[in-house]
Amino acid sequence: MTTLDLNSDLGESFGRWELGDDEAMLALVTSANVACGFHAGDPTTLRRTCVGAVEHSVVVGAQVGYRDLAGFGRRFVDVAPNELADDVVYQIGALDGMCRVAGTAVRYVKPHGALYNAIVHHEEQAAAVVAAVRDYSAELPVLGLPGSAFLRAAEKAGLRTVREFFVDRGYTPSGTLVPRREPGAVLHDPDEVTARVLRLLDEGVVTAIDGSDVAVEAESACVHGDSPGAVEMAQAVRDGLTRAGVSVRAFV
Amino acid sequence: MTTLDLNSDLGESFGRWELGDDEAMLALVTSANVACGFHAGDPTTLRRTCVGAVEHSVVVGAQVGYRDLAGFGRRFVDVAPNELADDVVYQIGALDGMCRVAGTAVRYVKPHGALYNAIVHHEEQAAAVVAAVRDYSAELPVLGLPGSAFLRAAEKAGLRTVREFFVDRGYTPSGTLVPRREPGAVLHDPDEVTARVLRLLDEGVVTAIDGSDVAVEAESACVHGDSPGAVEMAQAVRDGLTRAGVSVRAFV
Amino acid sequence: MTTLDLNSDLGESFGRWELGDDEAMLALVTSANVACGFHAGDPTTLRRTCVGAVEHSVVVGAQVGYRDLAGFGRRFVDVAPNELADDVVYQIGALDGMCRVAGTAVRYVKPHGALYNAIVHHEEQAAAVVAAVRDYSAELPVLGLPGSAFLRAAEKAGLRTVREFFVDRGYTPSGTLVPRREPGAVLHDPDEVTARVLRLLDEGVVTAIDGSDVAVEAESACVHGDSPGAVEMAQAVRDGLTRAGVSVRAFV
Amino acid sequence: MTTLDLNSDLGESFGRWELGDDEAMLALVTSANVACGFHAGDPTTLRRTCVGAVEHSVVVGAQVGYRDLAGFGRRFVDVAPNELADDVVYQIGALDGMCRVAGTAVRYVKPHGALYNAIVHHEEQAAAVVAAVRDYSAELPVLGLPGSAFLRAAEKAGLRTVREFFVDRGYTPSGTLVPRREPGAVLHDPDEVTARVLRLLDEGVVTAIDGSDVAVEAESACVHGDSPGAVEMAQAVRDGLTRAGVSVRAFV
Repeated sequence: MTTLDLNSDLGESFGRWELGDDEAMLALVTSANVACGFHAGDPTTLRRTCVGAVEHSVVVGAQVGYRDLAGFGRRFVDVAPNELADDVVYQIGALDGMCRVAGTAVRYVKPHGALYNAIVHHEEQAAAVVAAVRDYSAELPVLGLPGSAFLRAAEKAGLRTVREFFVDRGYTPSGTLVPRREPGAVLHDPDEVTARVLRLLDEGVVTAIDGSDVAVEAESACVHGDSPGAVEMAQAVRDGLTRAGVSVRAFV
Repeated sequence: MTTLDLNSDLGESFGRWELGDDEAMLALVTSANVACGFHAGDPTTLRRTCVGAVEHSVVVGAQVGYRDLAGFGRRFVDVAPNELADDVVYQIGALDGMCRVAGTAVRYVKPHGALYNAIVHHEEQAAAVVAAVRDYSAELPVLGLPGSAFLRAAEKAGLRTVREFFVDRGYTPSGTLVPRREPGAVLHDPDEVTARVLRLLDEGVVTAIDGSDVAVEAESACVHGDSPGAVEMAQAVRDGLTRAGVSVRAFV
Repeated sequence: MTTLDLNSDLGESFGRWELGDDEAMLALVTSANVACGFHAGDPTTLRRTCVGAVEHSVVVGAQVGYRDLAGFGRRFVDVAPNELADDVVYQIGALDGMCRVAGTAVRYVKPHGALYNAIVHHEEQAAAVVAAVRDYSAELPVLGLPGSAFLRAAEKAGLRTVREFFVDRGYTPSGTLVPRREPGAVLHDPDEVTARVLRLLDEGVVTAIDGSDVAVEAESACVHGDSPGAVEMAQAVRDGLTRAGVSVRAFV
Repeated sequence: MTTLDLNSDLGESFGRWELGDDEAMLALVTSANVACGFHAGDPTTLRRTCVGAVEHSVVVGAQVGYRDLAGFGRRFVDVAPNELADDVVYQIGALDGMCRVAGTAVRYVKPHGALYNAIVHHEEQAAAVVAAVRDYSAELPVLGLPGSAFLRAAEKAGLRTVREFFVDRGYTPSGTLVPRREPGAVLHDPDEVTARVLRLLDEGVVTAIDGSDVAVEAESACVHGDSPGAVEMAQAVRDGLTRAGVSVRAFV
């Protein structure tokens, strides 16, 4: 394994409120999960992000979420599956319009926040997101957590699935993420994070929160775009990968 | 002139709130101006409307508006032209996504409400809407008021322009609409309305509010979808056109 | 037991979208659960409803809900308890402002939709709503389902609790509501509904979905305001109560 | 004149998006114009800001704006006067609820952004805001631009009016603000800004953009809370006033 995609959540500003340094991140990642307006991202932000992605040859994916600006898409919403599917189609279409005027197109779909977490287990919502993507275009890969209901449903529906690894998140011995409110949920040391990514590529394992090794498969690594030190972390990971001879490139 | 398009504003329900009888109207019109979520229209409503349009062989247009659910897009918003353009691209893209899963595509663009009225005169906002449509697809015609800044800008940009007539609205001697708050703004008698449409097709004129004849050009006639008696009015107009040997069909 | 309050959900229009016949309902009920803008109700609607309540000597309560216009507050949202409490304070305050200019005040609080249902069991969200009400005014009674976590928490916090009965909803043998998606969830016959209310007042029981009698306590009866036939149903219940010598009056 | 109020716009974060350093500003100003949720400010932000204001003995005012989160209330909206009045009542009430649970109350009203600018000249919207404040409480002062239609209407309605000076904005020879898009609109040097405030207090004049002196009356000075260097600027002004023996205290 000598190639890896780096993805990050971008386009999450909204009107007067700025979040993250999209310009800097676009110089470091290969795939941009661009918000679609439901949890973040006004149209002008989305367009600027898509234009920037084209300039940096970064692939654009639709980061679809619950309709919840006040909660930034981080709160589970018990939306009916058919309505969720329609919300997802709407969001992909809107971002695809932005991509179109920027000279590109939506090339994959990655659910955001509470939706991402819900469809690790929530079969109906997972199926709804899959149906929306497939109805929109059966050619669109989906990015998700290895072992999730979402990726299982996507595979069954014939969609290409891309498994991702979170470079700065702690893992449990069973390979899931340590919840954010628990200690060890987020790693802050760029050197440690970089070492983890390289070990994952070399040995296919990552050190879990209890010190054990856990097997993790990943074609894409997610680096956060909106935390303090995000750009430095992404830079460190990218540099580490390059030094190790890994080809950092998009999965599509 | 022996053909005429009938267009109507549809897809304007939102969540729990229903507006208009889309199903009945789709059996009568040839072009559906479908809301795009900014002034009205949740994704599930939009999808149902697009599916219905396909079933009735009705052409779908994007009815783009100001971002103002509380005001139903009926209040002028002094949005900066570049932001307005981005808002319009977002809306067209979102509806196009809905059309895609319904087996069709957005085939034209018609501004809604206060935006429609503003760009009769507001050159910057008119240019912004035109730029958005052209950037999205130079093949998309725009529907608007004859003589408006919007249609002038669209022509200059190389877009096909389609002039429309409001079947149930009073006209001033200079060919503009009688403002809604003035007497004679809205006509309610289906027979009178039908006679006006037929006279327009025959003689190219309509009786203005002061009794004079005013020349009006139109390739499409707008029938309202959300007022009491809307379906009866549309039915009367359609029947009258058919009896008079006019071919009712979409302009695209 | 010879008095009963009749409450109904009102003020649920939003901008262009009208819902229910508030004017007619205000002539029939004694307590108005007025929406607060988070699941429904624009400020102009709220003011008109509060003014109407004053004219009809109807008591106004704050019908607080999740921040979810698109879902009409009918979808569970996993909002953090402290944020939910703040959302509830905001809503009570906003409606209290409307009451103030209408010459009254918020006199009780009733959660709406999915929030109402969630806090039958969800201890944290129940506690959050209770804390919000108590912080706003320990004098405000709360309206809720008998046996709910919400009423238990409210009692413990020293708030006055008012138990309500849904006149047109089916009950399970254990005294909870038959879920809306199951048969028998909603009753449509005004005579049957009226007879149920009278039997409840006489005997303290209601016939459950399986034919058994279930004990139900209620100081207030909820009549729906936004369904077809809502006004007729409310009229029938009110007339039946009056004929039976029951005094229909507010619980505050 | 030996006293001056310092006011600043606070509580303008929204959900995930943070804006300004409220905590630092609350240690420097005497009046907090707290957003009310229509242009900015989620309930949790508002509550935290109100609690902080109480801790710092800062007076809270309602910073009411157009219903336009995406535009941060900086775009004129042609809302009907009666609807604007209702929007204003709603906002004051909501913030008053937050104040109540924080142990204080709304003590004045200051319009925000495009609304502030519109009602310098727009008589109908000015009258609507005044009517809303008076209906809510005739005891609430309003903060506004000297010479504005808003302050004239407020005076006529019997409201106390408080004239404000913008410490870091350029003035035209006629005493209005230099529009933001023109050179000289915003001053960045804390020393220059402080000197202007002191001269205003001493001589009642400020140096206009063309070098001439223009008479300006002010009981309150607005320092911006959300620009880079905002805290330093506010600190410099406060220190300068203190050194000059001016008593910095709220106008209510």
